[in-house]
Amino acid sequence: MTLENISSNKCFNGWHKQFKHSSKALNCEMRFAIFLPPQTASGEKVPVLYWLSGLTCTDENFMQKAGAQRLAAELGIAIVAPDTSPRGDGVADDAEGAYDFGLGAGFYVNATQAPWQRHYHMYDYIVDELPALIEAHFPVSSQRAIAGHSMGGHGALMIALRNPERYSSVSAFSPICHPSACPWGIKAFSGYLGTATTDWAQYDSTLLISHASKTVPMRIDQGGDDAFLATQLNPEALLDAAAACGYPVQYQLHQGYDHSYYFIASFIDAHLRFHAEHFQSY
Amino acid sequence: MTLENISSNKCFNGWHKQFKHSSKALNCEMRFAIFLPPQTASGEKVPVLYWLSGLTCTDENFMQKAGAQRLAAELGIAIVAPDTSPRGDGVADDAEGAYDFGLGAGFYVNATQAPWQRHYHMYDYIVDELPALIEAHFPVSSQRAIAGHSMGGHGALMIALRNPERYSSVSAFSPICHPSACPWGIKAFSGYLGTATTDWAQYDSTLLISHASKTVPMRIDQGGDDAFLATQLNPEALLDAAAACGYPVQYQLHQGYDHSYYFIASFIDAHLRFHAEHFQSY
Repeated sequence: MTLENISSNKCFNGWHKQFKHSSKALNCEMRFAIFLPPQTASGEKVPVLYWLSGLTCTDENFMQKAGAQRLAAELGIAIVAPDTSPRGDGVADDAEGAYDFGLGAGFYVNATQAPWQRHYHMYDYIVDELPALIEAHFPVSSQRAIAGHSMGGHGALMIALRNPERYSSVSAFSPICHPSACPWGIKAFSGYLGTATTDWAQYDSTLLISHASKTVPMRIDQGGDDAFLATQLNPEALLDAAAACGYPVQYQLHQGYDHSYYFIASFIDAHLRFHAEHFQSY
Repeated sequence: MTLENISSNKCFNGWHKQFKHSSKALNCEMRFAIFLPPQTASGEKVPVLYWLSGLTCTDENFMQKAGAQRLAAELGIAIVAPDTSPRGDGVADDAEGAYDFGLGAGFYVNATQAPWQRHYHMYDYIVDELPALIEAHFPVSSQRAIAGHSMGGHGALMIALRNPERYSSVSAFSPICHPSACPWGIKAFSGYLGTATTDWAQYDSTLLISHASKTVPMRIDQGGDDAFLATQLNPEALLDAAAACGYPVQYQLHQGYDHSYYFIASFIDAHLRFHAEHFQSY
C-alpha cells in the first residue's frame, strides 16, 4: 500500500501530516491525518490513539479544534484521525444530502444494503486496514487506544467492545450509546444494515457490553447541556447495561458543557492522560 | 450600545460567547467572540487580550484553532476576537472577491477612498469602539494587551505603537511587518488609502517604530518555513528599524514552522504568559 503525503505542519515540535491512500476496505481513495510527536524524530516507536470523529466531520476537525497536540507531544502519543465515511465521485450519498446519513456519516459499520455495501465498510477500515497501514509506515508500536466523539464515540466504544485484544483503553465524548434506539442510529442502521434489527446488535455498545470477552478500561465524558443528550446519546442505557454485567465504566457528566469541540478541548488532556496510563500498564 | 448574544459554549470552566452589535465606527452590524475565564463568574475583573486575525478570518478561527482557552482560564485572562473587516449586504467587497482585499481583509486601517470609506474603519473600531463596548458590558479591567497573526499581527503591532498608553504588551505571530513594501500591503493601502504613500506610514510598523512615544513590551514569533516570509512579512525590516532607534523587540524564529494555526497553537501559551507577566507589572 502506498501513501501520498499531501500536507505537513510542524506542531509542538512534532508533525501534523495528511495522507491519501487507496483503501481496499472502502473501495475508494481515503484521506487521514496523523500527529507524530517529537519522540518519533529519533525513530522511537510510540503508541497510537485512533480518534473517530462525529457526523459531518473529516480528518481535520479534531486536529484543528481539540488542542490535543500539546499534551500528546509531551506524553509521546501519536494520534490518527481518519475520515468519517468513504468519499469520492463514485460513492453513494443520501439522496437529499442529509448530514446524518451517507457522506460524513459512515457510522463505523460494514454496510450490507445496496448501494451502500459497495463502499461503506468503515468497521473493517478502522479495525484492520488503517492500523495495518499506520504500523507499516510510521514509527509506532502496536499499542493502540481508541476514542471518539458522538457518532465517533459510538464507533470507539463499539469497536473496543468487539476487539478488546486490540486496544489498551477506550474513551468517548458524548457518544451515541444505544444507536438501535435513537433516531440517528435507527436511520443509519436501517439504511446500511437493513430493517432486520437482529443485525444491528453487533454495532450497538449497549447490546454488546454484556458479551465482551475481556474488559477494556473505558472512560466516557458527557456534557450536561448537550442538546442531543436526551434524544440521541442515552448514556444511561449503556451505564445500566454495564452495571448489570459488571463492566467498569468511568463516566463523568459535566454540568453546563454542550456537544461542541469547546467541550472536547476542555477535557482532551484528561483523556490523553487516561490512555497514557493504560499504554504504560498494558 | 446593545449586545445580542448569539452563542455560548462552556469551555475550560469559563465561557466562549459570540455577540452581535451595531458598530458606529464601521456603520454596520458586527460580530465578535469573547472568552470569559472562570474567574469572571464571581464578578472578578480580569485583563483582556485583544486578538486580531489574519486575511480571510472571522471571530471564529482563533477561538476554534489556537487552543488558547486552557491557559487563559488558568491565568484569568479574557480574550476578545473581533472580525477582520466590516460585513453585511451594504458593505463593498473586492470586485473579483479577492481574499486579500475587501471583506475579510480590512487591514486595521481607516479607509479614506470611495467606496471603502463608508465602512472600512477597522482602526477606530479596534482602538476605541470595541474596548469601550467590552469594558462597559463584561467584568474586565482596563488592562489591555493586543496580539495577532499575519495581517492581524500587523494590526496589533501598528496599533500598540500608535497607542502605547492603551496596552501593557503586544505580541504577533508572523506579522506583516512593513506593509508599505509588500504586495499584500501595497494592494490594501492603495485601495483603502489611495496612492499617496505618505498616507501609508501611519499604518506601517516599520515606519512608525522610531516615532513611538513610549515602549510597549513586544514579542514576535515567526515560522522559518512560512511560505509568506520572504515576500510578504519582512520581519528584518522591522527589526532593523527597531535596532536603529533602540526599541526592544523579543523576536524568535522557529525552524520548520509554517504560517498556519498549528504554529500559533504551538506557541500561544508563551504569548499568554508574556502578556500575563506584563499585566501584573503594569
